[in-house]
Amino acid sequence: MTKEELFQNIKKKQSYLCVGLDTDIKKIPKHLLKSDDPIFEFNKQIIDATLDLCVAYKPNIAFYEALGAKGWESLQKTIEYIPKEIFTVADAKRGDIGNTSSLYARAFFENMNFDSITVAPYMGEDSVKPFLEFDDKWVILLGLTSNKGSDDFQQMDLAAGGKLYEKVLQKSQKWGNENELMYVVGATQAEEFKNIRTIIPNHFLLVPGVGAQGGDLGLVSKYGMNSQCGLLVNSSRGIIYADDTKDFAKVARQKSKEIQQQMAEYLQKYL
Amino acid sequence: MTKEELFQNIKKKQSYLCVGLDTDIKKIPKHLLKSDDPIFEFNKQIIDATLDLCVAYKPNIAFYEALGAKGWESLQKTIEYIPKEIFTVADAKRGDIGNTSSLYARAFFENMNFDSITVAPYMGEDSVKPFLEFDDKWVILLGLTSNKGSDDFQQMDLAAGGKLYEKVLQKSQKWGNENELMYVVGATQAEEFKNIRTIIPNHFLLVPGVGAQGGDLGLVSKYGMNSQCGLLVNSSRGIIYADDTKDFAKVARQKSKEIQQQMAEYLQKYL
Repeated sequence: MTKEELFQNIKKKQSYLCVGLDTDIKKIPKHLLKSDDPIFEFNKQIIDATLDLCVAYKPNIAFYEALGAKGWESLQKTIEYIPKEIFTVADAKRGDIGNTSSLYARAFFENMNFDSITVAPYMGEDSVKPFLEFDDKWVILLGLTSNKGSDDFQQMDLAAGGKLYEKVLQKSQKWGNENELMYVVGATQAEEFKNIRTIIPNHFLLVPGVGAQGGDLGLVSKYGMNSQCGLLVNSSRGIIYADDTKDFAKVARQKSKEIQQQMAEYLQKYL
Repeated sequence: MTKEELFQNIKKKQSYLCVGLDTDIKKIPKHLLKSDDPIFEFNKQIIDATLDLCVAYKPNIAFYEALGAKGWESLQKTIEYIPKEIFTVADAKRGDIGNTSSLYARAFFENMNFDSITVAPYMGEDSVKPFLEFDDKWVILLGLTSNKGSDDFQQMDLAAGGKLYEKVLQKSQKWGNENELMYVVGATQAEEFKNIRTIIPNHFLLVPGVGAQGGDLGLVSKYGMNSQCGLLVNSSRGIIYADDTKDFAKVARQKSKEIQQQMAEYLQKYL
């Protein structure tokens, strides 16, 4: 999917919501456990209920890997079920030496046809480049994450000036262009969005941390939005686990609708 | 496995070799493709042929993930096949927010009973800690990697002094002790081992990059060894793909034997 197509979807749906599929067998409604593949069944119902309100789905790969081969099959079925016009993110935080990163890219871009994958920057350019070699696929590089541990290294001041995460944003822009590279910036870092937009004015940002982690959608939208929206704001637990009865999908839809309506307002206000 | 048990194995076998199971369906001998599970069959024969010459096996998870659910099954069979007295490394380079890291830990430590997993430090303490909560399991944190891209961020000078990778070594020592935490230091970085040993004198280091990547075993051993050896030196391609005929396991044994004999000398010399 191109950047322009993503923007068109955002305008059409008046939404920049990404629904996080952090599907945990221990948290899904009990009645689903009777089905052959409870994880896929849960995802399918969540997707059916939220499809017109979001522009992206983001399976968190750890949740599927924790179930072994069976989880991998549920993931495969989920990605095949999501209509092609919706952007998909493999939230995998991968990154390794070149020949290994190539294999991760093959796993998520070829075998499973994800549109994008989240990648960790610590190992540098040759660990990221293999993911950028696939046409029409995106790397979403970790910039400034939403967790407390982002203070440990990402916020560290460098001798040459600036912080580590700023250097990651600056340097990586030479590895790929804004049509193949996005960044993860946590919603809990709202005060940094202004600064981040001076470094990467045009890139899309994947923004986790709204909801359970405490990020503020209004501030993120105010400081993070650019002329093509440039934001995919993720919510996982706040949507998919808002209810644990047979009504879970209906309630997930209500929660998504609430966020989508806020987003429509922010698009009106800041775009 | 405890640090002391690992050291006893090293002394007994006169080896600190870790065999990397970067098993690629495109590179294994053609006659294996007839078997039900060629990846596992290859690993099984490599393990049988090298068991007495190495102290660790390191499946590179990307190679299995690239094959989807089927690859995951081959990985599961491989880890079950490796005798308990051999240290196992899930080379996965994972790391995410706390609840997600917990699931990766469950995948590799509970479902598959690996002794250790490689973890990327960029997201900081709360992304690493969940892996440290498992008894008798190890985190192998990326310190200074073997690839060219290690220059991009790891070698960056910090305003407070020192380099980023040094700060990673320093800071992370507070997260876990030397009985649960090791570090990845690439063999291509031999000149840095002296310095690294001033920061972490007692920790074990997992050292990739000997062989195909050009690292020097002699220099690594000279500058990296401590009083409990403190080194696991990995070789993957140089051993497992040294031959692509029906003799592949025999040749893998010869290659492992050559390395083990060098290691016996270095243990004599530097321990």
